[in-house]
Amino acid sequence: MIYCNGKKYICLLDFAMDFIRGKWKAILLCHLYSEPKRFLELQRITNGISQKVLNEKLKELENDELVTKTIYPEIPPKVEYYLTNKGKKLTKIIKEIEDWSIKHYPHLNNKCE
Amino acid sequence: MIYCNGKKYICLLDFAMDFIRGKWKAILLCHLYSEPKRFLELQRITNGISQKVLNEKLKELENDELVTKTIYPEIPPKVEYYLTNKGKKLTKIIKEIEDWSIKHYPHLNNKCE
Repeated sequence: MIYCNGKKYICLLDFAMDFIRGKWKAILLCHLYSEPKRFLELQRITNGISQKVLNEKLKELENDELVTKTIYPEIPPKVEYYLTNKGKKLTKIIKEIEDWSIKHYPHLNNKCE
Repeated sequence: MIYCNGKKYICLLDFAMDFIRGKWKAILLCHLYSEPKRFLELQRITNGISQKVLNEKLKELENDELVTKTIYPEIPPKVEYYLTNKGKKLTKIIKEIEDWSIKHYPHLNNKCE
């Protein structure tokens, strides 16, 4: 059993899965895999996430050191989010889950829509 | 956007992540990776899951065709759960997340307990 930051985890897998728990974080990481993105770009791509939730999820990913940001000294300020090295390695694996899904459910759009 | 079984998914990754949403399913899949296991074995290994929740999660994994079971005609009946081929492929990827966690948080037990 692992106790960390007031939470209890069964094992290191449980601990790692907590980084991507919920609907949005795995998706956000994948969208940052190819290149850094700005807040509004992420909001547009994820299509449906509120500004409040996106802000909260990005902060959680930053706290977990999977994502970091660069603030460019421009007016209005330009902020870009990108993956840390640790975040890139985790996201590479998450993208394999996406590949698994594409392979096993190629018919999904047709069947389910 | 994907609509399937009354749910709305942003993309196929979102759809796949739904299979392992929550605390238990990724852990259960990993415990079934090496060999089939019986209900009580799974309950013992996962240490803390209630019988009701374990039953529910195994049923969800069966419905999603990631896990199946064999009922042996014995008294009392012996039931073994094992991964389907599709489940094995997904679990192989989940185990990479476990490896990532072990690699990046080797100190965790010492630091956090």
